[in-house]
Amino acid sequence: MSPSAITPPTERETVSELTAQGIEHSLSKTAPSLLKQQAKDALLTDAAVETKSNGTKLARAPATLLPELDASLLTTTYNPNPRPVPLPGSPEEASQQVCTDHMIQAKWTVSQGWHAPALLPYGPLSLMPTCSVLHYATECFEGMKLYRGHDGHLRLFRPHLNCARMLMSTQRIALPSFPPSQLLHLITKLCATDGEKWLPRDRPGAFLYIRPTMIASDPALGVQQPKEALLFIILACFPSMDAPAGGMRLLASKDDMIRAWPGGFGYAKLGANYGPSLVAQGEARARGYHQILWLFGDECRVTEAGASNFFVVWRTREGQVQLVTAPLGAKIILDGVTRRSVLELARERLGKGGQGLEKVEVVERNFTMVEVEEAVVEGRLLEAFTAGTAFFISPIGHIHFRGKDLEVPMGGGEAGVYTALVKGWLKGIMWGTEQHEWGYVVEEEKR
Amino acid sequence: MSPSAITPPTERETVSELTAQGIEHSLSKTAPSLLKQQAKDALLTDAAVETKSNGTKLARAPATLLPELDASLLTTTYNPNPRPVPLPGSPEEASQQVCTDHMIQAKWTVSQGWHAPALLPYGPLSLMPTCSVLHYATECFEGMKLYRGHDGHLRLFRPHLNCARMLMSTQRIALPSFPPSQLLHLITKLCATDGEKWLPRDRPGAFLYIRPTMIASDPALGVQQPKEALLFIILACFPSMDAPAGGMRLLASKDDMIRAWPGGFGYAKLGANYGPSLVAQGEARARGYHQILWLFGDECRVTEAGASNFFVVWRTREGQVQLVTAPLGAKIILDGVTRRSVLELARERLGKGGQGLEKVEVVERNFTMVEVEEAVVEGRLLEAFTAGTAFFISPIGHIHFRGKDLEVPMGGGEAGVYTALVKGWLKGIMWGTEQHEWGYVVEEEKR
Repeated sequence: MSPSAITPPTERETVSELTAQGIEHSLSKTAPSLLKQQAKDALLTDAAVETKSNGTKLARAPATLLPELDASLLTTTYNPNPRPVPLPGSPEEASQQVCTDHMIQAKWTVSQGWHAPALLPYGPLSLMPTCSVLHYATECFEGMKLYRGHDGHLRLFRPHLNCARMLMSTQRIALPSFPPSQLLHLITKLCATDGEKWLPRDRPGAFLYIRPTMIASDPALGVQQPKEALLFIILACFPSMDAPAGGMRLLASKDDMIRAWPGGFGYAKLGANYGPSLVAQGEARARGYHQILWLFGDECRVTEAGASNFFVVWRTREGQVQLVTAPLGAKIILDGVTRRSVLELARERLGKGGQGLEKVEVVERNFTMVEVEEAVVEGRLLEAFTAGTAFFISPIGHIHFRGKDLEVPMGGGEAGVYTALVKGWLKGIMWGTEQHEWGYVVEEEKR
Repeated sequence: MSPSAITPPTERETVSELTAQGIEHSLSKTAPSLLKQQAKDALLTDAAVETKSNGTKLARAPATLLPELDASLLTTTYNPNPRPVPLPGSPEEASQQVCTDHMIQAKWTVSQGWHAPALLPYGPLSLMPTCSVLHYATECFEGMKLYRGHDGHLRLFRPHLNCARMLMSTQRIALPSFPPSQLLHLITKLCATDGEKWLPRDRPGAFLYIRPTMIASDPALGVQQPKEALLFIILACFPSMDAPAGGMRLLASKDDMIRAWPGGFGYAKLGANYGPSLVAQGEARARGYHQILWLFGDECRVTEAGASNFFVVWRTREGQVQLVTAPLGAKIILDGVTRRSVLELARERLGKGGQGLEKVEVVERNFTMVEVEEAVVEGRLLEAFTAGTAFFISPIGHIHFRGKDLEVPMGGGEAGVYTALVKGWLKGIMWGTEQHEWGYVVEEEKR
């Protein structure tokens, strides 16, 4: 099977997303699909070697003769016991435990490089009790969604960004590198295999959650760089979690619990960023909040909310409407694909005003809870929302900060006007009511 | 099987280690073994509820009717296919991959509490690809050793401290609590079962590495507090790693790679502290160093070395000999059992001088690489060593700090005088050439 056999022929995304700025304009956006795909593959591979992502030099291992991850070598074993698809809104869906009929696995060893990947029936992994990942958190993952469009197509959303970020994450946790294009081929193949059944055409607006994961699988207790690893990709049924009644309620973190720090790994999608957040998250839920609003430093800089990026829309004292989120420079927050997309769409579509809206200034800068509090008190806080894959765009209704309850406007309804606009634009691209280069169509396989 | 049936009758350790200071003196040290054990059990359980360990309030869940971890419910299935014991110094031993014939497992669920633990043949775990620990690093562990003494006995070293720290770690990573005394019973049982064969009496001075581990086993992708967990205990064959030729060579960490941070989790034995250190460790090894010397802050405070605590012995400018290590207050370093034991022995046995040695002042305080460098330059640095379970007491011969190579004296031989003294005392207690309350004798089971 050649890579092109598992590559969807329709390529609406630009080739530029993963490339250095100097490269992106050299590629014709009118090139034929295949040429574009080849160019993209090359760039993705190059990107893996040289591109800086989130300021991180992606230091891939020196070229060796060991095999690279190669989607064209995929072997296929279909599931002889497929399971029924949970109904939308069912407890099964809400459990986040149900996966589709198949998964993809690929093994890596330091002596042999990447082995041929395999599409297999979904099922348990067998790991020795000494397995590195169970002791040393040698693990990273990505979160993406597969959307069943209102036009009948299956789409991914800017998947190249996730594949590049996965590579970046592996490099922070000493896991093996790979060509991001090959990961994308594998993801696409799994989606193409299970999409037809698990996202029926009569349920437009539905989605599956895609979880590419890499773990160190060495059966050895020594604290050392992994010599074996396993990449696996699964598709899970997830509920929609983007519109909690009354808006999301956030509890600001306390001094004794911080999510990330400079010189740490808050910018990478490592398991090590999530488990240690669960005590604070549990306390928040026990007190009636949905998520922790993670602050940093004595000045209470606002960083992330739960496992999402955090945005405010406020009016400055000078009268300017601003969309503000924390910057990536300190490397303590995740370079979210949804975050980046919100910023790009807002700059493009809100930056000049019009259609009855004021001009919105889009700002990435450090800001503090004191600023947020002042904006609330002075009536200048217009809206706030979180942005991420799992929780998508979730309007915020309330923030508790050091004994104070801050009410956040939601436009008198389910979301403020800017939140609703951005969310609507993204939905349109994801579910195909707006044809956009960020929507990456997956050609389904009929079996 | 009652708990006492798997408790060794010989109790040399004081009951005071895990207790609040106010409690420890109320217990007679001349009480009979059984009474002492009962008292210790009660204290261990109380400790789980109330004791502060490393400054952390151990917040156990409110009492419920759900079953606690109970070693007396242990079921036993012996391994029908036992494997041969690797020879000392063999590649098998060095691989850190060989475990003994058995393991202990205990499952916990939020709805049913702790299930009956089981002693089983050592073998793989079956985990769903959605398993929490593979994505969110919901895991913690302990490191201990089982020693075959020169007097023929098997011993643990201050195991209550490890069991209490394991509880503390679980609470930082949202895993379930348990009575530390029950964990100790289970560890003891596994050691009693496999000790006879895997630490033959004709190999005094040998040891096995004990790894109690807890992982969240929920098969669900939601980022949430675990609803299922698995405790397992394994015994691995480990090489001795405490005397690298020429001493340990350390590479001081750089600004862009920080192990831990106040408000983080550097004080807990979480997987999340280890995986993210491997990139720096790999760079160190590639450059010819054994471990990273972890610094913190603009002032380059010295915290840990590799996964061990770090000690220096220097002469102050006023002429005083001091043994110095970083304090626990900021909660960025591990409260090591070996660290604590070094401090206690040094205070007791070096604090007054004698036997041809100067009086040594034992100091826990923040100190910086600048101070270490000045001591080297001025000829005041006498020795340095790391202290931990895996690497035991390892003399340091060299530190590379921001372009400078600092040579650390090793007394002209394998270790400086203070390093050798402390190491010798600990060895004596661990291998039974000194009868000491810290040595915890395990009664072997003959099968």
